[in-house]
Amino acid sequence: MIIGRQPLIEALENGRGVDKIFMYKNINGDNVQVIRQLARAHNIPLQMVPAEKLNSFTRANHQGVVAIAALVQYTDLQQVIDHVAGEGKSPLFVMLDGVTDVRNIGAIARSAVCCGAQALIIPDKGVGALNEETMKSSAGALEQIYISRVNSLAQAVDTLHLNGIKVFTAEMNAPAKVFSIGFEEPCCIIMGNEEKGVQHFLSKAADGHFSIPIAGDFDSFNVSVAAGIILYEAMKQRIAANG
Amino acid sequence: MIIGRQPLIEALENGRGVDKIFMYKNINGDNVQVIRQLARAHNIPLQMVPAEKLNSFTRANHQGVVAIAALVQYTDLQQVIDHVAGEGKSPLFVMLDGVTDVRNIGAIARSAVCCGAQALIIPDKGVGALNEETMKSSAGALEQIYISRVNSLAQAVDTLHLNGIKVFTAEMNAPAKVFSIGFEEPCCIIMGNEEKGVQHFLSKAADGHFSIPIAGDFDSFNVSVAAGIILYEAMKQRIAANG
Repeated sequence: MIIGRQPLIEALENGRGVDKIFMYKNINGDNVQVIRQLARAHNIPLQMVPAEKLNSFTRANHQGVVAIAALVQYTDLQQVIDHVAGEGKSPLFVMLDGVTDVRNIGAIARSAVCCGAQALIIPDKGVGALNEETMKSSAGALEQIYISRVNSLAQAVDTLHLNGIKVFTAEMNAPAKVFSIGFEEPCCIIMGNEEKGVQHFLSKAADGHFSIPIAGDFDSFNVSVAAGIILYEAMKQRIAANG
Repeated sequence: MIIGRQPLIEALENGRGVDKIFMYKNINGDNVQVIRQLARAHNIPLQMVPAEKLNSFTRANHQGVVAIAALVQYTDLQQVIDHVAGEGKSPLFVMLDGVTDVRNIGAIARSAVCCGAQALIIPDKGVGALNEETMKSSAGALEQIYISRVNSLAQAVDTLHLNGIKVFTAEMNAPAKVFSIGFEEPCCIIMGNEEKGVQHFLSKAADGHFSIPIAGDFDSFNVSVAAGIILYEAMKQRIAANG
């Protein structure tokens, strides 16, 4: 936890990750605007709460502000793209559109690192937390991949497109099969929620959709297994393309 | 729970699945030998316990015998092989050598059914239970696949070999890659424990070993993701072989 106005401002200015900020609902005075601006700039959810909520976190003098420090380091999406390009690599990213189970998120991060993907893109709402269980399920992989937290997945797709990165969605009913997609080019794979799949506006914005073939009388794989199979296909294509 | 001697004998004779039998350590009298023989014939673990343990399960007259009914139906391995052959299918089985996490087991069962595998082979000890959480993680797949519980995985490999079914182990350091293995032929894939991998005696008895390629700076996939990737490869080969 980060307690008080100045410690929070310093943490944010030094690029330290913050998962969420709780602010007293009738707050006023010094630095409140600065905190609001920094929160917006770093896509950090800010929730206005009664004094009792803040007092339940700490008995210290919180000045109306308590924040949850992140276990991972978040990086701005454009910065991630620039870093990856700077390393001479072809972007392979994974976007999580509402995957809620933290163990699935951990396993997906692990597969992403195994398969040479460089970044996870997650929304700031509607996705499982990157908490200690997620870290454990990832077996440390969450510390070896760029994580970009965005407040709009649609805007993130725009940013990817502006940088020449294609976007593909995994959808159960797509006629194209995963092995027919060209993953050697710069691309981002969007995985949807365990129950509802990929949201319609993302599917519409995507450059292609694909499904994993199914031989048996069953409808779908676990989402982290599906992500693993897709990333494995992408890796195989990239290994073959590079001889 | 199944309480008492005669109810347990009837359950066993009617082929009802039983996960474990608890028996009073100083038991004697009618039917005790019959229960012992049936337990052995069906590979059901039988544990001798003090009276207090049995009394903690139930206040009914248990006659020194309490058993845990299985949530799944177990089928004898040779019967499974005969059934699959009778359906004109080429066996594709998965053996779990000590996978302990029930959610991993559930996800593996789900991938197995998706990829057209017909059976899971599990040891009667050292593997996660097929309990309600496992059922839930499998999304119902555990009810759509033959499950064979054996008291010796080495003997199970012998049975597979006698029926012309090859056995391949997934091992992190195997030089052969998963896509170079011939999964179109009748075969069984052995997945090892999350930490320790496949046991040495199984690796030695196997017809081949393979690994999944890894592009990133990381050592391994989650075991259920790895099983999903391998089963996906097997399915792809079988789809290609059958045109």
